[in-house]
Amino acid sequence: MTDTIDDALTVPLTDRGLAYGDGLFETVLVRDGVPALWHEHCERFALGAQRLGIEAPSREWLDALLERAPAGLQVLKIILTRGSGGRGYRPPMPATPRCYWQFIPFTPMPARWESGIEARLCRLKLGRQRALAGIKHLNRLENVMARQEWQDDAIAEGILLNDLDQLVEATAMNLAWHEHGQWWTPALTECGVEGTLRRALVESGQLAVVSAAPLSRLLQARSACLLNSVQGLWPITQCCDPDNQHVLARWQIDEPVRHLQREAHRLLGHATTFSTS
Amino acid sequence: MTDTIDDALTVPLTDRGLAYGDGLFETVLVRDGVPALWHEHCERFALGAQRLGIEAPSREWLDALLERAPAGLQVLKIILTRGSGGRGYRPPMPATPRCYWQFIPFTPMPARWESGIEARLCRLKLGRQRALAGIKHLNRLENVMARQEWQDDAIAEGILLNDLDQLVEATAMNLAWHEHGQWWTPALTECGVEGTLRRALVESGQLAVVSAAPLSRLLQARSACLLNSVQGLWPITQCCDPDNQHVLARWQIDEPVRHLQREAHRLLGHATTFSTS
Repeated sequence: MTDTIDDALTVPLTDRGLAYGDGLFETVLVRDGVPALWHEHCERFALGAQRLGIEAPSREWLDALLERAPAGLQVLKIILTRGSGGRGYRPPMPATPRCYWQFIPFTPMPARWESGIEARLCRLKLGRQRALAGIKHLNRLENVMARQEWQDDAIAEGILLNDLDQLVEATAMNLAWHEHGQWWTPALTECGVEGTLRRALVESGQLAVVSAAPLSRLLQARSACLLNSVQGLWPITQCCDPDNQHVLARWQIDEPVRHLQREAHRLLGHATTFSTS
Repeated sequence: MTDTIDDALTVPLTDRGLAYGDGLFETVLVRDGVPALWHEHCERFALGAQRLGIEAPSREWLDALLERAPAGLQVLKIILTRGSGGRGYRPPMPATPRCYWQFIPFTPMPARWESGIEARLCRLKLGRQRALAGIKHLNRLENVMARQEWQDDAIAEGILLNDLDQLVEATAMNLAWHEHGQWWTPALTECGVEGTLRRALVESGQLAVVSAAPLSRLLQARSACLLNSVQGLWPITQCCDPDNQHVLARWQIDEPVRHLQREAHRLLGHATTFSTS
């Protein structure tokens, strides 16, 4: 393994990660060799491996990766697959998993932290599958297809509902809204990825988890945001419908947004001081 | 590209097929260079590519692959991915798709044609996602997890329901049962893979498609079978529950089974003469 992005880095054609998406990944923000939310990333990785029945690399092996980090702000991408072999879908017994990794230089988007972003509602509805919900597995075609729905660069993210029209997440970020003096985020027991930043904010009591929330909960909220452990927290200023014909809701970048952003960015080492609108 | 299975054949680590399962595959039975159900395979491949928004290889390019076929019975596995690039889930515009292929020697299992197989009911229920239903995409973790539910080699396949407890398919084969003088197979508009053999039998009027069929439809049928374009048609003799505690149903290998098997095997060039029980 090496630590650059390079098409010369390869994977065997027989790898089940390619054949079936039979594996997991993590993307970790690393600043001068120091990872953000490392414990949460390692735990999600281990949980996902357990769910899929793949042996995960040890915490020591993962810790040792960090010593290879280039200086500055990087994203460490780790991919774990079940390796090659087996008969069709049937996994080999025992399997010899493979773990690939690369450091990718990362540049944050402070304008999005400061001024927020515009989102759209995706047409695609996420299917529900408890066996795969929450973990960061390699079966991400729903995310790809949702992200493919729009090309307009003025729209930064797409909000995803499940097939029951309940709020879930955005294509690559978790979702939260402020209502009744509290931040809320959808439960991810049936679909979606449990982001590590989301988890840390839930565990510190900053975010409350709500099940089966309809879209109206978000649209009626006073403020809303998207978050993940790499990009940090983006306030959402408005959301348009899938046809980009009309704005479904507008939100303020108020003190609750800035408060949650400070808490989130403290965990990531991102800038914490922005003005309210 | 080359035509052997070999871990020396590789894929760039950055390929979106690995990162997100962003692609498709086909497995085609090829006998001495002659493919079975080639038109159906090429059409499903093109339909899947259209659904994912990936440019598919031309029919001429696919036809030329067959000239590389080794003698004897082979499975041609073709994998199409969106290639590398893009920003996270967002596909690159334009994308440079990659098409990988290999011929894998194939040995059929005539004992299963003759005597049928035992199946089990899978505990995992398939999620429903119309955007991905029917096509043979690379997001196959549900199939892998379902196939991982049992190790007993006496059980050849697992029958899958969706989350509404409706019949769908088996982990790697389509499902059919005989009832009221007719063969039935579940509609695959919400989940499952539309097998090419299934399609050919539906189009020739041998198989009728039924929506929202509960498990009881299968359990009350007189005979049942599994089929795909590589293995051919396996009669099912019995199906046990997910705990392997009791038999849910037993089926006969009667003349309707042998009739459908002959029709199926004629399309594939497999043996067609077996006795009824």
